[in-house]
Parts: sequence; structure tokens; C-alpha cells
Amino acid sequence: MTEAELIAIIEEVRAGRLAADAAVRAIGQPPAVDLGFATVDLDRHARCGFPEVIYCEGKTPEWVESVVRRLTAAGQNCLATRVSADQADHLARLFPQAEQDRLARTFWLAMNPLPQRGQISVITAGTSDLPVAQEAVVTAKSMGCGVTLLADVGVAGIHRLLRQRENFATADAIVVVAGMDGALPSVVGGLVDCPVIAVPTSVGYGAAFSGVAPLLTMLNSCAANVVVVNIDSGFKGGYVAALIARRRHESAP
Amino acid sequence: MTEAELIAIIEEVRAGRLAADAAVRAIGQPPAVDLGFATVDLDRHARCGFPEVIYCEGKTPEWVESVVRRLTAAGQNCLATRVSADQADHLARLFPQAEQDRLARTFWLAMNPLPQRGQISVITAGTSDLPVAQEAVVTAKSMGCGVTLLADVGVAGIHRLLRQRENFATADAIVVVAGMDGALPSVVGGLVDCPVIAVPTSVGYGAAFSGVAPLLTMLNSCAANVVVVNIDSGFKGGYVAALIARRRHESAP
Amino acid sequence: MTEAELIAIIEEVRAGRLAADAAVRAIGQPPAVDLGFATVDLDRHARCGFPEVIYCEGKTPEWVESVVRRLTAAGQNCLATRVSADQADHLARLFPQAEQDRLARTFWLAMNPLPQRGQISVITAGTSDLPVAQEAVVTAKSMGCGVTLLADVGVAGIHRLLRQRENFATADAIVVVAGMDGALPSVVGGLVDCPVIAVPTSVGYGAAFSGVAPLLTMLNSCAANVVVVNIDSGFKGGYVAALIARRRHESAP
Amino acid sequence: MTEAELIAIIEEVRAGRLAADAAVRAIGQPPAVDLGFATVDLDRHARCGFPEVIYCEGKTPEWVESVVRRLTAAGQNCLATRVSADQADHLARLFPQAEQDRLARTFWLAMNPLPQRGQISVITAGTSDLPVAQEAVVTAKSMGCGVTLLADVGVAGIHRLLRQRENFATADAIVVVAGMDGALPSVVGGLVDCPVIAVPTSVGYGAAFSGVAPLLTMLNSCAANVVVVNIDSGFKGGYVAALIARRRHESAP
Amino acid sequence: MTEAELIAIIEEVRAGRLAADAAVRAIGQPPAVDLGFATVDLDRHARCGFPEVIYCEGKTPEWVESVVRRLTAAGQNCLATRVSADQADHLARLFPQAEQDRLARTFWLAMNPLPQRGQISVITAGTSDLPVAQEAVVTAKSMGCGVTLLADVGVAGIHRLLRQRENFATADAIVVVAGMDGALPSVVGGLVDCPVIAVPTSVGYGAAFSGVAPLLTMLNSCAANVVVVNIDSGFKGGYVAALIARRRHESAP
Amino acid sequence: MTEAELIAIIEEVRAGRLAADAAVRAIGQPPAVDLGFATVDLDRHARCGFPEVIYCEGKTPEWVESVVRRLTAAGQNCLATRVSADQADHLARLFPQAEQDRLARTFWLAMNPLPQRGQISVITAGTSDLPVAQEAVVTAKSMGCGVTLLADVGVAGIHRLLRQRENFATADAIVVVAGMDGALPSVVGGLVDCPVIAVPTSVGYGAAFSGVAPLLTMLNSCAANVVVVNIDSGFKGGYVAALIARRRHESAP
Amino acid sequence: MTEAELIAIIEEVRAGRLAADAAVRAIGQPPAVDLGFATVDLDRHARCGFPEVIYCEGKTPEWVESVVRRLTAAGQNCLATRVSADQADHLARLFPQAEQDRLARTFWLAMNPLPQRGQISVITAGTSDLPVAQEAVVTAKSMGCGVTLLADVGVAGIHRLLRQRENFATADAIVVVAGMDGALPSVVGGLVDCPVIAVPTSVGYGAAFSGVAPLLTMLNSCAANVVVVNIDSGFKGGYVAALIARRRHESAP
Amino acid sequence: MTEAELIAIIEEVRAGRLAADAAVRAIGQPPAVDLGFATVDLDRHARCGFPEVIYCEGKTPEWVESVVRRLTAAGQNCLATRVSADQADHLARLFPQAEQDRLARTFWLAMNPLPQRGQISVITAGTSDLPVAQEAVVTAKSMGCGVTLLADVGVAGIHRLLRQRENFATADAIVVVAGMDGALPSVVGGLVDCPVIAVPTSVGYGAAFSGVAPLLTMLNSCAANVVVVNIDSGFKGGYVAALIARRRHESAP
Repeated sequence: MTEAELIAIIEEVRAGRLAADAAVRAIGQPPAVDLGFATVDLDRHARCGFPEVIYCEGKTPEWVESVVRRLTAAGQNCLATRVSADQADHLARLFPQAEQDRLARTFWLAMNPLPQRGQISVITAGTSDLPVAQEAVVTAKSMGCGVTLLADVGVAGIHRLLRQRENFATADAIVVVAGMDGALPSVVGGLVDCPVIAVPTSVGYGAAFSGVAPLLTMLNSCAANVVVVNIDSGFKGGYVAALIARRRHESAP
Repeated sequence: MTEAELIAIIEEVRAGRLAADAAVRAIGQPPAVDLGFATVDLDRHARCGFPEVIYCEGKTPEWVESVVRRLTAAGQNCLATRVSADQADHLARLFPQAEQDRLARTFWLAMNPLPQRGQISVITAGTSDLPVAQEAVVTAKSMGCGVTLLADVGVAGIHRLLRQRENFATADAIVVVAGMDGALPSVVGGLVDCPVIAVPTSVGYGAAFSGVAPLLTMLNSCAANVVVVNIDSGFKGGYVAALIARRRHESAP
Repeated sequence: MTEAELIAIIEEVRAGRLAADAAVRAIGQPPAVDLGFATVDLDRHARCGFPEVIYCEGKTPEWVESVVRRLTAAGQNCLATRVSADQADHLARLFPQAEQDRLARTFWLAMNPLPQRGQISVITAGTSDLPVAQEAVVTAKSMGCGVTLLADVGVAGIHRLLRQRENFATADAIVVVAGMDGALPSVVGGLVDCPVIAVPTSVGYGAAFSGVAPLLTMLNSCAANVVVVNIDSGFKGGYVAALIARRRHESAP
Repeated sequence: MTEAELIAIIEEVRAGRLAADAAVRAIGQPPAVDLGFATVDLDRHARCGFPEVIYCEGKTPEWVESVVRRLTAAGQNCLATRVSADQADHLARLFPQAEQDRLARTFWLAMNPLPQRGQISVITAGTSDLPVAQEAVVTAKSMGCGVTLLADVGVAGIHRLLRQRENFATADAIVVVAGMDGALPSVVGGLVDCPVIAVPTSVGYGAAFSGVAPLLTMLNSCAANVVVVNIDSGFKGGYVAALIARRRHESAP
Repeated sequence: MTEAELIAIIEEVRAGRLAADAAVRAIGQPPAVDLGFATVDLDRHARCGFPEVIYCEGKTPEWVESVVRRLTAAGQNCLATRVSADQADHLARLFPQAEQDRLARTFWLAMNPLPQRGQISVITAGTSDLPVAQEAVVTAKSMGCGVTLLADVGVAGIHRLLRQRENFATADAIVVVAGMDGALPSVVGGLVDCPVIAVPTSVGYGAAFSGVAPLLTMLNSCAANVVVVNIDSGFKGGYVAALIARRRHESAP
Repeated sequence: MTEAELIAIIEEVRAGRLAADAAVRAIGQPPAVDLGFATVDLDRHARCGFPEVIYCEGKTPEWVESVVRRLTAAGQNCLATRVSADQADHLARLFPQAEQDRLARTFWLAMNPLPQRGQISVITAGTSDLPVAQEAVVTAKSMGCGVTLLADVGVAGIHRLLRQRENFATADAIVVVAGMDGALPSVVGGLVDCPVIAVPTSVGYGAAFSGVAPLLTMLNSCAANVVVVNIDSGFKGGYVAALIARRRHESAP
Repeated sequence: MTEAELIAIIEEVRAGRLAADAAVRAIGQPPAVDLGFATVDLDRHARCGFPEVIYCEGKTPEWVESVVRRLTAAGQNCLATRVSADQADHLARLFPQAEQDRLARTFWLAMNPLPQRGQISVITAGTSDLPVAQEAVVTAKSMGCGVTLLADVGVAGIHRLLRQRENFATADAIVVVAGMDGALPSVVGGLVDCPVIAVPTSVGYGAAFSGVAPLLTMLNSCAANVVVVNIDSGFKGGYVAALIARRRHESAP
Repeated sequence: MTEAELIAIIEEVRAGRLAADAAVRAIGQPPAVDLGFATVDLDRHARCGFPEVIYCEGKTPEWVESVVRRLTAAGQNCLATRVSADQADHLARLFPQAEQDRLARTFWLAMNPLPQRGQISVITAGTSDLPVAQEAVVTAKSMGCGVTLLADVGVAGIHRLLRQRENFATADAIVVVAGMDGALPSVVGGLVDCPVIAVPTSVGYGAAFSGVAPLLTMLNSCAANVVVVNIDSGFKGGYVAALIARRRHESAP
């Protein structure tokens, strides 16, 4: 809130056109709901363009359920990630209308779908990277963004990528998902003019160190347009790519 | 024991007013009990203000039971942490009067409750941090300290914290429990004038490295009043916060 | 090159309208120049939207000079980063018309400036982060993007950031530069609806581990719109933010 | 600011007893000063009990000078840490009245000294830990807290500590500074009933890993009253110990 | 494809001796098959001398089955590694003619066996290294290379190795498999004149850190002829040793 | 074998007093037995003073059984460590006369007990360290060395150790077993004049990093007489302590 | 030495055709020269195919000189690596006929050049990798192997590599030198049928961690023919590649 | 002090045969001298068999001088390690009679030499390990122990060690000093029946990680008689080896 806005509100109060209560609400902080075990941020969509997303690890099925109810009661779209089998079963009984993806381990209940805008590519180095890639796909689609998936085109057979080049060259943003050596984002980055979101995965063994190896590879990418998110965070990869894509097709200020 | 005290005792012996045995006890080391598998420090309460606390991992239920019996036989309060399900069941049968908290994984048997003194706040960044926070809550309450719990007010929705500011501003000490980016203690630290005990948790995945990420964040906090304890050590967070709070309300020397 | 394009070229050859040599060039790989110690990628601008940028560490001043000459001879803009004092002096004598920034350690010689498009904010947690931030500023400006710099608004005095909120709320993308606890990007991310590029710095000591601590913090950010680049890589932070900003204001396909 | 306070202010405005400007100031954020390269937090003392402390690494002597001038112009005490030789010489010329400690690398200019309250002990394991310990001493004294220093009483000669026990047993808080094996805080913690702030140092070689070894030792201390700060952070050790000590001797709410 | 070859093809087109379609195929990239979840590189054998090998971790049995079918349908040999018990059972039902090794966790289906060439030794430091060593043995044999296995001759009883010296002295290449201290490759390397491929294993405990200790030992080997592959990668050890051995017995260009 | 010994043998041959075969055996390498999966070092006792000890992890029960049979067939004592429950059951059926310790996870079958010599102390910081300590106890006793066990005397209650000082002051060597902060060996080392073998354990959580914290503490011990073995290696701790103790009571050369 | 050989020698002694002294020398260990500070292995060439190479770090110029003199006095070729400027100057005065390469930091004095055999390629990702690559070039040439150098063809401009494919496709072995993301060896490995020796370099900053990032990338390479040597070890890369190349062109047994 | 001893003393006091002062001294702690910056442990020799050794890093020359004066004034032998050039020069002027070793960086001033007892071997893997080895040599000699040095017999030329076997086979204890792969202690350990103290050095580069690689190798040694000290701690290696050796030749209790 700017000083000017604040003065305007107070002038309204001084003129008697606005009650003190309403002024407090206008000046005060954005809304949040206390559930005891959680403080749901109902303002997230207004502030950031997408509602709070539920990270399910370490939560009881009942805790997840309560947050879903609160968000949907507020008319907000509800995406949950890292849903365990137990949580998925619990939610499936209560919200049969929701879409659950067992590979991506996601739960999606659309109350107010976003208009369709933008197009991203999700590319994986190997087949074993698919669960993470699928989390990116579901996330981006939840945000109203189109997605093309291109699987298993790692650099040991570089022609597999090059022959598909026209399929990703015009994307608004690209998510590249890779474990082991994590070399693919650098190659993709050097072929395109859009941002590349690199997602390291825990695929591999030994000195892959559960994703540390591809994480470091990606942070040190020699391609200037490559940024990185957390290991196995298909969610963030899809989220930021879709954010970039959407905003490119909205009228900028 | 000072030299002066020692001379006084020995003069008592020389004067025949004190038996050799009693002098030995007076001069000698504080008491401890040998159980073979454990050496119980019955002097801890006298020295440090709270009895030895039982760390249950790696112990058989019978070993834990024996130490509980020794402490309580000596009239001391008995707190145990990291109680496994098996240990909890075993102890529940033998000490039905004890309070067990399955979320916090604690066992509490009060023989001689401390007088109520001081007030702390326990604040968590997320819902998944609750088991660790609850360990802090139980520990602080065992020490006779009042506790307010504020859950899930992480920095991605900073207004959730700011709107509650009056609830923690007057605490004697604050425990902040956070996993993932561990950013919350720095923000809380910058809002208050009391010590903040930061407790990193193993909540998160990938580059959270089982709590290393928030641990490092907290050690590097840009707020000067933030100190840190071990990953997932709700116990230490609650212990030190309660210690500070209690002593603030006792008459200092 | 698509199959359709390839067939078209070959039909031109078959029809005698195109010489074999020319076809080879049309079909062949994009241009590169061999200097013996370097293979300059003159196609980078066409492929990725910005020419190859010279990373100066580990290069002799003469090697840097040669690459600068090749790029500018090809009419391309020339940005160099991590310029040492020796290299800077050498280049200043030869290219007095270039802009050098000793804080950012950059060299910039514009042969063909890009049209001005987009606006980003660069925000630092502390004053010591300024050299890295300035590298981001120079890079983004080289790409024809507007930049606002906001320095030293770290989370220990959160009001310093909140009072400036209107200054960065409408940016096309935001670069947040922070060392030590690296907590600032999470807070900024939760306040805006654009992508946030987090740049960890080696500012700090002890358990900051030369930037590892803020790097991990940022990778684990609880804000969904935060992506990360390498430690001290103001260059990449500025590059990707400007890329996102520019493309948002170009007509998308 | 509570809702009640906000309503009170607005009622004042409605009643015409308070001008809009004044209301804005009352409601608005706390003060901060923009210097371009720094945003000085002049509210820190009001909020946290001590002014912003200047961390000098990575700053030019002129930048440090400017912040010193701003703080002192606002009548605030000014403490700076990690002052380099160059910075120290520069500041010595401009502020001859300030106290500089070359061992601790500190600068202290008292505009408004705090009343003397509380007493802490600073204990080191070795002689080489003295620079870090001295930073703690200077910091605590700046905060108006009494300090006793006890040097080189590491655990390989445990009697050196035990014979001094009466000298630290009644402290309000204790700072223990140790490198190498970092074992001293656990021993001290087991002897006293006050909080112990452990400060690991980079003293040592090989597997001390510049302070990582004692840092881990201290985080895993088997004494419940030990908390930890960053490697070599005598500043934080002294700050938090003095904060605990001071507040113990102030009238609690 | 060289420029000369490309010109030749285009001249063929210009002369009307080659259709455009055929030219496209001749110029185009090598073949690959899209299965949706995988892009099988059918050109690998032609390019690298051995078909793509299936890494089974993180794949469903059905995914593995499909790739096996594709490779064998193309008449290619099919080797799969890290086959789980579930995958092994599934494949055993469908491809009873294949050879599965439960110790090595491999699947081998020979469609077109390579001619027998070259001879390697596989040497292990301990008995617990045998599963990794056996993966090397199966891989090398699949490539048509002879293998001698020498187990449990670690350096704590150096005579066990020395007495077998004549058995490995004439090998074309040697694979040395070791966990714990990983010292064996250095000793073997100093006794022979052929390349030694060192394979660290996760055998050991504590500071072996799941293979990190022997990995570092091997990377720092004081013998000049020792190279290293990933922890537990018997596959790569056997692959490269067999590649070296085979090529030594083929007529070089 | 010295040159002199070799010449003597050869002179025997030249004189016809020794057959070539016998000379080969005399000059040749010490004996070892090939089992295919293992090469048993039957010379270890002669060379090192104790037979090869079987490390059971990663071995089938049958493999362990075979090595036990070979050793005992050669009349050698047989110690096995890290025996799993399955292996223990298998061995118990076949070798009912052997002593198995389920806490220490050891198997001991004495064919030719060593004469009793020397005395060591094994001291643990906590009760949870007992399995590792017991492995040390069993190992030392197998070597014919007397052992005193002192459990749970960690430094947080230092009097527990000091009151037992006379019980370990005259040991020939001391094994100190500790997890978490690993501080105990430094304190013990400073109280005695014999070598201290420090054994870090994986007891602890969070920043104990499965024993890394106490390992580093011990490597950096400020007591000069402390040496270290691998994490959880009660075996090595007991072995080396007993070796030192035995040899002190044998007639030195 | 085989049993048969040993028996033959002893029969010679028995028959009086061989003196005891000579037999001892025949049976004994291979030659080595004691210099007090060094034990020069004059048998290395006979055993391993190339003489001992002098690693110069941590040695005085005089120590290096002495070893050079011993090797050359024995008629052996002498290669030294990591020669400091001081050492280079010292050696240049004494051995003006030697070839020194200041970029590679090598010293080479050929007493008995090997016949020319085999051909390798050395490929670098960037220009800053050249010093390490040049060490590989000098080493391979010292071993009598032909070398082609291809510089600065990293994966961000993949066409730079592909256009040179014919230049390295027929090599006997390839050394790929790369820092930062270390992605190049995987791409090269997927294009060729010969072994690829990957050499990670310390080129880069931040999360490159002085070569750890490319080291991990290379260890996890998805190409099966890639093996790895130590960070910055151009020497080992060149040595093993030349060894493979030479032996391919020698008559195998 | 035992309870019995304490009672005896007190009975003496009661009987008037002992003054209170004397009793206090008898019961009290051992002596230590406070220098302000240091607390010199004058009882160390009595307790541990050798006086406190001065670790010089991080100390001013004057601080070192003062401790030397205190120790020698008390008639104790004085050993200092890690003496810098400045400290060495300062001490050389004041204590010309002391022996300084510039390679080992030691200072030795014998006031009361120990009788000569025991014999150890110090063995190094390479020439660059000599400074660390020499620190071990000086330390052991200071303790009155005989030392044999055997340099540069690393495992890549294993015969260099084997031919010297008789020179170390009868040592009372062996110190093995090695950097890089650190493989030598395992080989030595397997050849002898005495304890082996392994000293990792920071010799090496890249993945040697300043001594971490050989440290891990040694901790994981497959030889049971190998214990480890800190990286580059020739001091501890020599100290413990000499302690073992001396005590073997003293009359045991």
C-alpha cells in the first residue's frame, strides 16, 4: 500500500464516508485462515497469480483434507503435490471429482480454471525421469498452460533431441528434467532463445548422490539461459515455466 | 568447591565436629548410580536446574524403564524423548499415570513439578514441522514454562506472521521451527527484542538434505539474536527457551 | 532444419537453381570460427537471441582481445564478464570506446544495440552483495532491458523491503541477490506474481561456505516462483530476467 | 500494530484530532534511510533493543564511513565488526574518539551508552581462540553487560576449568569459544544452570575443516543448555549472551 | 557426415540419380523409435559398437519389456542392468531364452552375438564386492570378450595378489573392484602395463560413505594407468575394459 | 625374507640338502586358499599375530560358513563380525560350540586360545553406544586380553567419569566409544598416560550425520594420545587396544 | 616370477652353474635406488611400459634435479609434471636440452624416445581448459603417440563439435577436458566407438567447487564408454589414452 | 583420588598430623599457571607422561615465548609445533640452545631428556610427504624413542616397500605417512604385527581434497591394526607411536 492510497483511505474516514472497521480491513494485512495446525494463505492467488499449493509430505490425510476444504470453500483452485498412496485414497473418497495422477503423485481440483494461455515443452533425459516430468506437466496444465512432453532424449544419443528440435524451438519456456549427469539442459539451452528451467532428478546411483550431481551440472551450465530448481521439483519447474509462458501472452503493463 | 570451603570442611573434621564419611561426601563428587548399561546422573537437577532427560533411541524398552524407575525413585521429574512406538507401549503399561505425546514422541512423569514461570512462543514455518515443534512445547511445559504455539506462518505469505506479531512480541524467548529454506527465524529475529532459538527440521526434499539447508540458513541468519540447535531438536529448542524464560522471572543473584 | 526445408533445398539443387556448394552451406551446421585456442560461436545470437559472452577467467589478455575482435568484426555486440584488472587495462587501451564497470568487472562494446524492451528489478539483501548485483544490472542493460536497483533490504529489517513494494511489484522479472542466510528471495517471491531469479553470493563467513548456504536456501525456497542460478552469477541472473522481460514485450508467435 | 491501536488512530483522524500525514506516519512502516548502496535500519534499536551493527567485509571504507555517520547522526550507538586494517585506519582518522580493538577487529562509537546490566563469562579452549573471544567481549560490553574472560582451559587438562568453576558458575549466560574438537561447551554446559552459547572457531587444521568439526560437535552437544552460532561469530555469541543477561536484570512484563 | 559426402549426395540429386526423399534420409539424423515413455536409440550399435543398454531402475516391468521387444525386433543384442526381482520375474516369463544373472542383476538376450575377441581380468578386493564384479563379467562377455575372475585378494594380504600375478599380467585390460579403502587398483596398476579400470563399491560402513571413500582413493591413485567409473558400476568397468580389449584385437585403421 | 636367509636356502639347494620343490615353498609366498568367492589368508596369524577376521556384511550365510570351516580346519581361531540375524542362525546350527553375542553381532570359535595378557578399559559416553562397545569387548577378549567396561559416563556429567578414574588409570590402553558430540576421548586422553583409541558411533541424529560429527571431533582431539578408527568400528578399537596391551606384556625384542 | 622360473633358477644353482649371489638377484625384487628423500623406481618402465613420472609439487628444485639425474643416468626418459616457475628455471639452467612447456607446466627429457604409434584426440569444452589439455598433449607425445587438439567446442554451441566430428571419429582414444558443467564427454562418448577419458577441470566458480561439479557429471555420464580421472589431471588423461592407442597398434599376445 | 585416599587424608587432618593447607593441596586440583592469554598445564607431564606441547598457529611470537619460558622455568621439556618463520626467528634469538627443524617446523628445548626407549619406523608414500614425516620423527625423538625413516615407497612400486621389509618388521610401532590415495598403511598393516599409525597428508590435488581422500582411505583400511590421526598431524603420529614403543619397554604394572 502506497502512502497516497493510505492518505486517501484516511481522508475517506475523516469525511465520514468510511467506517473505522472497514478502514482497518482496507489498511490491514491480507486474509489468512487459522486451522490450528495450518494457516491457509487465501490471498496467495491475488498476490502471486495462483493459490497456495499443498505440499503433502509429513501431513496426515485429515490435515490435507481440511486445507482442501478451506481452499475450495473460498472458490480457489486446489493443487496438491507429493500425495502419498494413503492420502490419495483418502482424498479420492471425499473428492471423487478431483483429478489425481498416481505417476506424478498430484491432486487437482479445479474450482475456477484459468483461461488457456502459453505453451511449454517438458523434455526428459531418460524414462526414469518421467514421474518428475509428469509433476511439471500437471502443474503447468493446472495453470492453464499448454504442454508438450518429449521423453528420453538424453545426450548419449544427441540425434534423438536434434530431430525433434522443431517441436520445442517455439515454446514460451522449456522444462528439462534429467538425473545422472544432468547434461541435457546445457545442450537444449544452446539451441533455443527462451528460458530453460532445469530440474535435476534423483535418478541414478553412486556418485549421482540422489540428485546432487545433476544439480551441480545444471547450476554450472555453460548455457546462459538455464536456471535451476530443487532436486525432483517437477512442480517448480512446471510452475515457473507456465508463469513465464502465461505472462508472455497476457497484455503486459 | 572453593579452597575456602574446602578448608572450612577440613577444620570441621580436625575439630571433631564432622565425621570422615560425611567429609568425604561433602568434598567428593556428586552422586551417580551405576546400572551397568547406564550411569544415571542424579545430580543433574541440582547442577543444571533440570534432571537428566532420557534419549530413547538405541535403547531397549527395559533399559528405558530402568532409568525411569531410578529417576522417579529419587523423586525426580522424568522426561524422555524420541520414544518409539514399542517403547511407548511398554512404558504406558508400567507408568499409566505418565503423559505421553505420540506426535512429539515424548514421555513425561512429574514427581515434583516446577513452579510456573515465564512464557515462550513456538512458531512453525509449515504444518509438517509440527512434530518437532510439539517436542519443544512438551519440553518447555515440563519445565514449568507457559507456551503459545503458532503454526504454518512461513515467509512465502509473510502477512500470516505479521498479523500475529502481538502474540509473540512479548515472549521471554521464541522457538522458531522450520525446514526447507529455514528463512523464518531471520524474519522473526528482526521483529523482536528477545532471543530466538532456531530449530531446523528435516522437512523438505532434494537439496534440503534432511535439514542441512535450514541449518545453514539459520547459522548464517542476518538477525543478531538468532541461535541454533541441532536438526529436529525440538527438545533443545524448548529447553533453552524455557531456561531463559524461567530465569528471567526468578530473582537473579 | 525441418525435413520440409531440407527437401525444398534439394529440389532447388535438382532443378539446377542452387549450386552444390551453396546447398552444403545451407544444409550444413551454423558458422563458427577457429582461433586455435577458441572456437567462436558466431551463430549464438541467431540461435539464442544474444551473442556468445566472454568468460574471462583463466584466459590471457591476448586471448580475450582476439575473441573481442572476432565478435565485433562480425558486427556483434560484445559482453565480457569476470574481467581481471590486467585484462581490463589491456582492453581499455585497445577499445577505449567500450564501457567497463570495475565494480561489476564487465566489459561492454555495443556494435548493434538491441531495442529497449521490458523492465526488471534487481534487489540485494546487503551492501556487500553489490558487485554481483551490478553484474546483473550491466548484463540486463546490455540486452536492452530497463533496470531498477534496490540495495540492502534484507529480511532482518523486513520493513525496508515492504515500504518499497510498489517499486518492484510491476517488474517483468526480479533478480534477488543475497549471501549469508539467503532468505530474501522467498519473501520477495511471496509478494509478487512474476518470476524471481535468485542469485546466491559468497558474502558471509563460516557456515556460509562461500555461498553454499544461500544457494541451498534458495533451492528450497517455499515460494513457488523462485528459480536459482550459480553462486555469484549476477550475469545469469540478469541474463534470464532480461530474457523473460524482453520476450514478454515482443509479439509472441 | 494491533487492530485496536489502528482503530484508535483512525478514530482520532475521524474526530479531526490527527492530520492525515501524521496518521500515515503512525500507521506506516518504521523509518529507514536510503543511501543508494545501503538502506540503514534506524528502527532496529527500537524494535530489537540494539542498533544495526555494521558488517564490514566487502564494503569500501567510504561505505562504512557513511553508515557510521548516519547512525551517529541519529544519536545511535555504532558497533562495527570484521573491520579490516584499511577500514580501521580510515575510521581512526575520522572518528578518533571511537574505540577500536585490533585483536577483535571491532569499531565502537558510543553515542548513548546503555545502562550497565547483567554479567556473562567468555571462556576459550585455547589461546588461538582469543580473537573470536575478544569480539564477543567487545560486543557484550557495548551492550552494557559485564564480562569475565577465562582463556585456554580446554578439556585435555580438565582441571584448568574445574578450578575456575566458581568464576563462571553464577554468570547470567556463558559464551564458550573453541576450535579443533570443540568439546569444551558440553563440559561447561554440564556444570552450570544457565544457557551456554557455543562459538566454533576456525582454529585447527586438517579435519577441522575451518571450523566445521567444532560446529558439528557443538550442534550435537550432549548438554541440553548449549546453543550454537556461526563459525568465528564472536559477535553473535556475545550479543545473545548479553541479551539474555540484560533482560534477566530488567523488570520483565 | 563430411562436407565431401554431403556434396556427393547433392550431386547425385542434381544428376537425377537420387530422389529427394532418399537424400533426406541419407543426410538426416540416425534412426530412433518413439515409444512415448522412451526414445530407443537404434543407431547406438552402429555409432558406438554396442546397442543401447537398458538401465532398469525407476522403470515399470512393462516399460522394460517394451524396450526389449523393440531392440530385439531390430535384431539387436539386448543387455539390461540393475534388474529388480519383479522385473526379472516378468522378463523371465516373456523371454525364457534370455540369460539372467541374479547376483549381477542382469538380463541378456543375444540376437546377434559378437565374435569372440580379447581377454580381460576382473579382480576384487573382497568377497562382498562380487555382485558388482559379476556385472562387469556379464557385460564383458556380452561384448564377446573373454574374462578371468580373481576374487578376494585385497591388500591386507598382498601375497594373495602377487602369487596370481601371472594370471592377470597379460590381460588386455583389467577391472579392479573394491570397496572400503579402495587401495587395490593402485597396487595392481603398478604391476602391469595395461589400462586398469577401477570400480569403487558401496561395500563398507561408516566413513566408507557408500563408496565415496574408495572412489576418492581411486581418483587419486598414484599409479598412472588407473581410470575410474561410478560407484558400483560394474557395468561400465566391464564395458570399457572389453571395448579396449576388443579393439586391440581388431585391425586398427 | 632377508637376503641372508635366501642365500642360506640356496646354499642348501646347491649342497643337495634341500629339494627344489621345498626351496620353492620356502622362498615362495605365504599360503592362501582359493574358494572361488574368497581367497582365505591362512598366513595372517603368522604375519600379524591374529587370524583373518570375517566381515559378514554382503556375504551369504554359506559363504561365511565356508570360510569358518577353512579357518578352523587349519586350526586357527575364528572371529566374525557384523553377523546378521540370518547368518547367526545359520552358524548357530552348524557350530553350536561357538560363542555368539547378539548385541555385538559377533561369532567366536576358539580353536587355539591365546594366553591371557594385558588389560584394557572400554568406556562409553552413552547407553546407546553399547553395541559398538561390546564388539570391542568381544574382540579384545578373543585376543586374550582382559577388559573392563564402563558405560554411560559422557561429559555432560563429568563427575561420572572422574569418580571412576582409578578404574581406568592403569589400563594398558583405553577404547572410548562415543556418538553425538564425541567429546569424551579428549577428556579421557587428558587424564591418562596410555594410548586412547577413539571409536565414533552413529548414535545421534540430525547434524551427527551418522557418526561424522564424533569422527571429526576425535580426529581433532586436543589430547595428543588419541587415535581414531572408523565409525562404529568397535572391532578395530578393541583389536588395536588389545594388540598394544598384549605386546606390552610380552618380552620385547 | 612363476614357480617354474623359480625352480629353473634353483636347478641352475644346484648344478653349480649359478652363484648364490646371482640367484638372489634373479629371484629378488626389481631394482630401486635410495636417495634418502626418494626411492626411485627404475623398474617402472619394464613393468608398466613407461618410466616413473616426477610429480613436482611439494619438492625442492634440488630434489627434482636429483631424480632427473638418476633417471637419465639409467638411460630412461624423464617426464615431470606440475613444475613450478622456480623449478622450471632451476631445471632449465641444468638441462637446457630438455623441452619445457610453461602452459602445461611440464619438463620432458628424452633419452630413448619410444617409436611413434597410435593417434588420440584431445578435446576441450572451453579455452580456459587449455593448460590441463596441454598437459595431456605433452604426456601423450612423450609416449610416442600422435595427438590432435580441438579447443573450445562446449555443448552450449553443439554444432562446433558436430562439424569437427570427422576429426576425432577415428581416434584410438579421446581425452575430453571440461570444467563447469562437464557435459561434453557424454556427448562425445555418444558419437564414437572408442574409449573416452574424461578430465574434469577446476575451471568455473561457485557451485563448480573447484572441479567437483564436472567430476560428478563425468562419473555419472550416460555414455557407457566414458571413464574418469582426477580433477585437472591432464597427465593421467593423456597417459591412459596414449596407452590404449599404443597398445592397439602393437602386436597383441 | 579414591574415597579411601580421601578418608586417609582427612583422618590425618583429624589426628592433627596434617595442616589444613596441606590437605587442600593434597585434595585439590593439579597445578596450572594463568598467563591471561593462556593457562599452562604444568601437570600434563605427571598425568600423561609428556609436557603440554605448544601449537603455534594463531599465536603471536610473544605468546609462544611466554609459554616456553613458563615450561622451562618449571624444568619441563618444551616441544612446539607448526612454528612459522616469524616465530622461529623470534625463538632462535631468545633460545639459541634449542633445536629447530625448519622442514618439520618444530622447536625443541630439552630441560630434562627422557631416557632412550623403544624404536619406531616412519614410512612415507612419497617425497612430498616428508615435512609431515619429519614432524613425527622430531616428536618421537623428543620422547626418547629411536626412529628409522623410510621415504617414498608408495604402492605403485610395491617392491620398494617389500625389499625393505626387514627394516620395519621389528619396530614397536610404525607411522605411515601418505597423501593422494593413502593406500600405503593398509599394505604395511598387512605385513606386520605391531600397531600402525596412519597419517594422511594434504599432498595431492583435485579430488584429494587437501587430505580428505587419504584420510577416508585410512579410516576404511582393510588391515585391522591401522589407526588414524588428523590430516598432516605428523605430531600425533609420532607421539602415539613413541608412547606405544616406550611403554612396551618400561616395566608394566
